[in-house]
Amino acid sequence: MTFKELSSVQCPDDFEELAEKVLPPEVFAYLKGGSGRGRTALANQDAFLAWDLLPKLLPGLLLDSTSKGNVGMNLCGVGFSSPILLAPLAHQALYHPEAELAVAKAAAASSTGMVLSQWSSTGLADVASILNNQSAAQSPLLTQMYFLNNQAHNLSLIESFHSSGSQAIVLTLDAAIQQPSMDAMRAGFVMPKNWSNTHSMAGAVGIADIEWLLKNTHLPVMAKGVLSAKDAILLKQIGVQGVVVSNHGGRTVDGVPAALKQLPAIRHAVGPDYPILFDSGVRSGYDVFKAIALGANAVLIGRLQAYALAAAGALGVGYLLKILNQELTAAMSLCGCNTLAEINADCLQSVHILER
Amino acid sequence: MTFKELSSVQCPDDFEELAEKVLPPEVFAYLKGGSGRGRTALANQDAFLAWDLLPKLLPGLLLDSTSKGNVGMNLCGVGFSSPILLAPLAHQALYHPEAELAVAKAAAASSTGMVLSQWSSTGLADVASILNNQSAAQSPLLTQMYFLNNQAHNLSLIESFHSSGSQAIVLTLDAAIQQPSMDAMRAGFVMPKNWSNTHSMAGAVGIADIEWLLKNTHLPVMAKGVLSAKDAILLKQIGVQGVVVSNHGGRTVDGVPAALKQLPAIRHAVGPDYPILFDSGVRSGYDVFKAIALGANAVLIGRLQAYALAAAGALGVGYLLKILNQELTAAMSLCGCNTLAEINADCLQSVHILER
Amino acid sequence: MTFKELSSVQCPDDFEELAEKVLPPEVFAYLKGGSGRGRTALANQDAFLAWDLLPKLLPGLLLDSTSKGNVGMNLCGVGFSSPILLAPLAHQALYHPEAELAVAKAAAASSTGMVLSQWSSTGLADVASILNNQSAAQSPLLTQMYFLNNQAHNLSLIESFHSSGSQAIVLTLDAAIQQPSMDAMRAGFVMPKNWSNTHSMAGAVGIADIEWLLKNTHLPVMAKGVLSAKDAILLKQIGVQGVVVSNHGGRTVDGVPAALKQLPAIRHAVGPDYPILFDSGVRSGYDVFKAIALGANAVLIGRLQAYALAAAGALGVGYLLKILNQELTAAMSLCGCNTLAEINADCLQSVHILER
Amino acid sequence: MTFKELSSVQCPDDFEELAEKVLPPEVFAYLKGGSGRGRTALANQDAFLAWDLLPKLLPGLLLDSTSKGNVGMNLCGVGFSSPILLAPLAHQALYHPEAELAVAKAAAASSTGMVLSQWSSTGLADVASILNNQSAAQSPLLTQMYFLNNQAHNLSLIESFHSSGSQAIVLTLDAAIQQPSMDAMRAGFVMPKNWSNTHSMAGAVGIADIEWLLKNTHLPVMAKGVLSAKDAILLKQIGVQGVVVSNHGGRTVDGVPAALKQLPAIRHAVGPDYPILFDSGVRSGYDVFKAIALGANAVLIGRLQAYALAAAGALGVGYLLKILNQELTAAMSLCGCNTLAEINADCLQSVHILER
Repeated sequence: MTFKELSSVQCPDDFEELAEKVLPPEVFAYLKGGSGRGRTALANQDAFLAWDLLPKLLPGLLLDSTSKGNVGMNLCGVGFSSPILLAPLAHQALYHPEAELAVAKAAAASSTGMVLSQWSSTGLADVASILNNQSAAQSPLLTQMYFLNNQAHNLSLIESFHSSGSQAIVLTLDAAIQQPSMDAMRAGFVMPKNWSNTHSMAGAVGIADIEWLLKNTHLPVMAKGVLSAKDAILLKQIGVQGVVVSNHGGRTVDGVPAALKQLPAIRHAVGPDYPILFDSGVRSGYDVFKAIALGANAVLIGRLQAYALAAAGALGVGYLLKILNQELTAAMSLCGCNTLAEINADCLQSVHILER
Repeated sequence: MTFKELSSVQCPDDFEELAEKVLPPEVFAYLKGGSGRGRTALANQDAFLAWDLLPKLLPGLLLDSTSKGNVGMNLCGVGFSSPILLAPLAHQALYHPEAELAVAKAAAASSTGMVLSQWSSTGLADVASILNNQSAAQSPLLTQMYFLNNQAHNLSLIESFHSSGSQAIVLTLDAAIQQPSMDAMRAGFVMPKNWSNTHSMAGAVGIADIEWLLKNTHLPVMAKGVLSAKDAILLKQIGVQGVVVSNHGGRTVDGVPAALKQLPAIRHAVGPDYPILFDSGVRSGYDVFKAIALGANAVLIGRLQAYALAAAGALGVGYLLKILNQELTAAMSLCGCNTLAEINADCLQSVHILER
Repeated sequence: MTFKELSSVQCPDDFEELAEKVLPPEVFAYLKGGSGRGRTALANQDAFLAWDLLPKLLPGLLLDSTSKGNVGMNLCGVGFSSPILLAPLAHQALYHPEAELAVAKAAAASSTGMVLSQWSSTGLADVASILNNQSAAQSPLLTQMYFLNNQAHNLSLIESFHSSGSQAIVLTLDAAIQQPSMDAMRAGFVMPKNWSNTHSMAGAVGIADIEWLLKNTHLPVMAKGVLSAKDAILLKQIGVQGVVVSNHGGRTVDGVPAALKQLPAIRHAVGPDYPILFDSGVRSGYDVFKAIALGANAVLIGRLQAYALAAAGALGVGYLLKILNQELTAAMSLCGCNTLAEINADCLQSVHILER
Repeated sequence: MTFKELSSVQCPDDFEELAEKVLPPEVFAYLKGGSGRGRTALANQDAFLAWDLLPKLLPGLLLDSTSKGNVGMNLCGVGFSSPILLAPLAHQALYHPEAELAVAKAAAASSTGMVLSQWSSTGLADVASILNNQSAAQSPLLTQMYFLNNQAHNLSLIESFHSSGSQAIVLTLDAAIQQPSMDAMRAGFVMPKNWSNTHSMAGAVGIADIEWLLKNTHLPVMAKGVLSAKDAILLKQIGVQGVVVSNHGGRTVDGVPAALKQLPAIRHAVGPDYPILFDSGVRSGYDVFKAIALGANAVLIGRLQAYALAAAGALGVGYLLKILNQELTAAMSLCGCNTLAEINADCLQSVHILER
């Protein structure tokens, strides 16, 4: 797919259609689906429809200032040129032969932060070498971690994060229960054999495990999979430096709340200065704007990343990031926000929708 | 259907599809349908969608402890190894040649409580002999009762309950008005001729009838078909030992409330210690969890039982019970509940849905 | 259609399907449709779905007492054996050659009150002679009236009501704006030529007109087409003896409220003793029960009457009335009501639906 | 299309279907669509369904008085014979060869106010000469303006407004972000080459620009595109003489609120005497009535105008205006309003709908 062909893509969702054309049906079904009947996965997207953008005409639209890219931000001491980051997605070779390398190239080219999955199809060192070039400050590398049943393995994992130049650890807590969607299973999807390593994941990560991790790394640790204010408060109390509000894109138990719905209460609970990342259901730069307005500092892009990767490799991911950032700045212009800090709930207006 | 084939069943609802394949169309229509247009039957299921499960990450998921089966409970002095019981379903020969015997075998094999219908296709003694073996404590037998117009018949019925080893009587109060769904009637369903005994049911069971029953049995009596707090309070006052919150699976008058919707107010009215069973609309172990969180002590499985019975006899019912219990413990793990007693409304979050 | 064939009718709505088979398409489209896009006509029916029946088990279901027909009532001094009355429908020759005579026969045979339309296809005297036989007290005749532009005509109309034995006048106030549904017009429906008399209707009936009528008749007058509490209060103040809460079955301007939705506030405004009739959207005896629970004394049956008339003449209307009354008493039994006076809002529970 | 054929048009929406038949598919898709997925464009229409008309029977329907056309009003010192005005639509040659000239003819013939777009396909002078004849007071000309990047061009534009007899300037503020709907782009729609002048629009109109305009014209200025009370208050404070509550028919960023939803709060904020025009989503004279009841002084007709223009040129637009005014007076009769001033929120009743 050439860049010219890509220009026919009008919105991020168009990548889903393109991905469906190139992926084996069972892989696409797995990628698209949430667990069970996919109710939570749908609810994640619907939750964004519960908010309209409220335009602000005066003192004058801000197209120029925001289109200059004034969307830089700092999270846990790491600087990013945009609040739109690439989410950790396992085993990307499922979607494109270049896998995580293609994503890293797009991240480096577009100065985007990337969170690499522990179950990467590509070695951490290879990905890091792409991101950690001269312009490393522009495309920070973060590393996602599952707790394994073997503490020695956990230690060597942490050491690999340190040596690779990772700037933060994203510890996933919500993956104990996961299964492909019924659609995917009916389409014949089976986990690739080399995913067997996932069996070594610790079933239940406890407070002691997290405290152990905090003692064994100098990197900031963010806990991923938080859906309740209680959990967020507890994680903050034990020293975790930030949380990722997420329901794993609807991939854990079907029937948990839409992630966006939980965001305001969690922000309220942890206070204005505690770092919050968000994912689950983001399908446009307008959605990014809404998540920030409701309390997120930054947003992880998951399924869209895989769709764009499948459709056009590094080029696709790069183009996706371009559109998402354009949409974000368009929303900022519309609502009169010069900087990310000016985005707040007053920019939104609630809409009466049904939930699924 | 072999056990291997059964393993393709991914969720309890899959048994509905399997049952549709093997049952005569009019029998399936009768089994599936509620009365009238089936609005209440649909509302029963939808009511569960009005609640999401709220995950609790810390102090650590509890997969191991709950998967060890710590879901025992006591109801009216009877001990059960799980809060998932088999509902009284009339004339099961409609669904499988082994009828209630197959269900009893599954109950005994899986240590599940079973409530036998008064209009059983199989003799009470035969069913009891399967359940009342050495491990009787594991698969308690309860017996369901309709009041008949003939008091002598009622007495001999009670005596048969006593002699069979029944541990409780479930007295059905809501069956005065019942008819097959319009779909079933249009599909040509007619009540089997030997159902004519149902004509001997007393049309209106009153307080005096219930008091008579209480005097003539030493067994605990639970009243089935309660949908309002007022009825529950009155039943408790006259000495009934428990209630079954139920709308007969939507089989009485179409247009009564979803049973789950009524549950919290009834629990509030009778206090925390009064036994409440629940049925109507349960389609998964997650639903069982929700019913318990909203006030039930235990849950009766009706249509799913018949679907599984039709699909694969005792094997099907046993496999159904296995999945339901797995889903229940998965929900407990997700929400941080070590025991049934820890399941409460804080584990749920309301969802804005439409009702039918 | 024989009575045996009729017994395949399982609910009143089944008559709609039967009518569709026998009526010319444009006539059926006219009969079924509301004005415009039919939104109000649909809303009329949906409004009933906003209420569930709340069963009452104790002190015991009342099937027997109510099935004995204890549903008599008195309205404006007229006694009726059931609160289910036949609505005034214009030009019934459109639906069946026997027209209003067939309806009157059914009314007489089933002891039902009938309101004859001013634009009857059949002469008032002929209809009256059927109803005013020995058993006249059982099938009271009421007459519906439009104000004409010619006062002499109005006077002679009133005199014909008096001489025919009419026991009350139902004055329609909401017919100034009416047109067939768009579907009916597209199906080619045109008002029959002899409907040209409708052009002589007074466009705007005012207070002075109503007061004139009250002075010129000894009969009680009920005003039809009331949707607001303000209008009801004003009508009561000027001496009108009752109101019919109705939006003309959705046949005036499309986009007025569902009639049932307006009923509780109107009952509240006029007090418990003021006569209120209700129509618009009633499709079952359960709906009749709901309208009474929300404030109506009795209910007029419009479209269903025409469907049954079209399907099977007097036999059809009679069978319809039988089913409606059975459903009403079934609802009374279910909710523990011995008499109409015991039907109230506590028998219902609100449901969260969408309106159209 | 002859006038006789037009008489088959039963409601304004019928023009949409007719337009679809005569326009090239991509032009129709552009005209019909909102930006993006068209959610805001749909929400605009749905917002009207959130309100029913509440009929008022007494003291008597007002068909005659209102049908005499007592709907005159005054806006910013300009007199209009109806509150239904023609909206500024760019480049109408897309829809009909006579373009804005046909619309002007219809306006003059029906004594309707017309707002001419700055990007008119027809010269301002030619349009003005049609409207500014003897009966000019009956069809006032207003002119819509975009700020250009070149102040000299802005000045000459204002001078052309003055010399043409324009009676007010409608300054559009919400056009910085606009794009055709995805459907239109997929249908191959591209902006006509001569639309390139739109590139000279100033991206961001600020307070200083508006103040400059107010100093350089004696005409009243109304600001178009207001969706928030804050913006309306600020515009009033700096001396703008009125606002147009509008989201550009859903053509800016998809996902802003339905315009009608914002109207009551804006009216409340600016007080009862400040001029408010409204557009976005109006599809009938009943909708016009609702917008007035919720706070508008008058309403602009956009898409319907183009549909009628495409279907039948001046004749179509004239007939559309006739129907719209008939529906408006029918609603006034129904709700007991003798004049526009009597139309208020008490004439409406809220309906529980979903938003998109």
